[in-house]
Amino acid sequence: MTKQTTSNTSFSKLVIVGPGLLGGSIGLGLKAAGCQTQVVGVSQRQSTIDAALAIGSIDQGTLNLAEAVVGADIILLAMPLGEFASVLGKLAEHLEGKEVITDVGSTKVQVVTDARAALTADQMTRFVGSHPMAGREKQGATAAVADLLAGKPCIMTPEADTDAQALATVRAIWTQLGMNVIQMTAQEHDQDSAVISHLPHLACVMAARTAMVLDGMDMASTGFRDATRLASSNPTIRADILKYNRDAILRAMDTFEAQWAAMRKKIEAGNRDSLYDDLVQTKAFRDAWMTKQSQKENKEK
Amino acid sequence: MTKQTTSNTSFSKLVIVGPGLLGGSIGLGLKAAGCQTQVVGVSQRQSTIDAALAIGSIDQGTLNLAEAVVGADIILLAMPLGEFASVLGKLAEHLEGKEVITDVGSTKVQVVTDARAALTADQMTRFVGSHPMAGREKQGATAAVADLLAGKPCIMTPEADTDAQALATVRAIWTQLGMNVIQMTAQEHDQDSAVISHLPHLACVMAARTAMVLDGMDMASTGFRDATRLASSNPTIRADILKYNRDAILRAMDTFEAQWAAMRKKIEAGNRDSLYDDLVQTKAFRDAWMTKQSQKENKEK
Repeated sequence: MTKQTTSNTSFSKLVIVGPGLLGGSIGLGLKAAGCQTQVVGVSQRQSTIDAALAIGSIDQGTLNLAEAVVGADIILLAMPLGEFASVLGKLAEHLEGKEVITDVGSTKVQVVTDARAALTADQMTRFVGSHPMAGREKQGATAAVADLLAGKPCIMTPEADTDAQALATVRAIWTQLGMNVIQMTAQEHDQDSAVISHLPHLACVMAARTAMVLDGMDMASTGFRDATRLASSNPTIRADILKYNRDAILRAMDTFEAQWAAMRKKIEAGNRDSLYDDLVQTKAFRDAWMTKQSQKENKEK
Repeated sequence: MTKQTTSNTSFSKLVIVGPGLLGGSIGLGLKAAGCQTQVVGVSQRQSTIDAALAIGSIDQGTLNLAEAVVGADIILLAMPLGEFASVLGKLAEHLEGKEVITDVGSTKVQVVTDARAALTADQMTRFVGSHPMAGREKQGATAAVADLLAGKPCIMTPEADTDAQALATVRAIWTQLGMNVIQMTAQEHDQDSAVISHLPHLACVMAARTAMVLDGMDMASTGFRDATRLASSNPTIRADILKYNRDAILRAMDTFEAQWAAMRKKIEAGNRDSLYDDLVQTKAFRDAWMTKQSQKENKEK
């Protein structure tokens, strides 16, 4: 654990690179929390800027990154993972020396690697990897909502050389948005994400694809809806995750396949009692987590 | 499609064998709909009877099936699938000749097979297989709620020899509860259920079991919650389904495995663009279904 320093939440200029669903929701959320910061949005597309301005998630917008970051206190990277290397490269040339940088990327090892490759050693001390874990089925700048992040977990992955003040500043942003900050290494984040998010996403996708091939959808109801919800998530984000967290995902897939094969053998054999035991065990595991979650939520209220 | 006859919804005595979550919710739902029927619950356990009486899902309760069915118009079988053969066997001896029988079993081929084995040809004409597709994570007699079934699909699987009046009577019960009745063969029901319910359930279970083995649960949030919701469903019902719908489930598992293997190959190869195309296709399939569903729901309002 890095030592915590008193944080400065009254920074005067925040730049959001990619004011889409997540970036825009952060802008809206900070405004809703009474934060007086000037919020500048940067995008490669004017339509994103226009939508973000219309919804009020940013105060100003530009297509020019260099122009946007002049005088910035905080730079929030909220574009797709595939754009990190190039944006960080451009950013390094235009930083003035005090900016704190954070991001919302769904994988952290690749992001930190990109940052370390692009930034100077001094700039890198003020880069703090973050992953606010929130989303919805709708996407883009117009889908942003002020309360998207409240009550959700936010993972922060400081490195050994991360500046304590920069860490405290970034932490204060997530806290102000009502998020539950959890600190871990980028490696731990990627391993755990593979298990609790990336693998379940794949299972959902495969269940949906099975129905796509075999049909039967006239009967589909709430069970199918929930079991496949993640299959409706953003394909760009998800394809990037499958690329950038490949090894941890393959490890989780190995475990899934072993469990699947064992249970399939029992189904083939009609071994109802052993299947029943497996289902009781799995249900107990999930129900215990659900109970813990709702206790956590009650405590927060 | 079987010809529809005007239905008699004002039957005077309904017997619910197994007034648990589903059976009890039917009792409560009919009362809430203003149905004046006397509802008698039968169970092997006095605790179930007591709970059903306390919650008001039945008017009277007994452990004695023979006693319960005297003078019954409708007998609703809502016990676990494993008990159908034995309950139908006992029932056949005590039927008086006018009772309509239906059920809420999650698989239909085995239920119809059990019914045909136990009942006389005449009794069998008044047996109408049903599968009201509703559930919740809580289970048992105390979990019953009046609106569990409203707005949900109910599959009915009449056979060639099913009496048209019996079919209309059973259909009227589901309609009165606000369900959307869909008619198909028992075989179609089991094939389609395997695809849209039983296979997604297995995918959820395996995703939960992967997390059980590898951990990472501190980060788990709403995505994990929804993706594994079905893993919390009733182990008795689910183990019975894996037994009684084995062949259709194995067929769906084959398709799932083929999809999984193809996508795994692309993940291993880092073939991001092809993975992206697969995710776009899957999302489009699910989103189209979701749109159709919400149009259907709006139309019903």
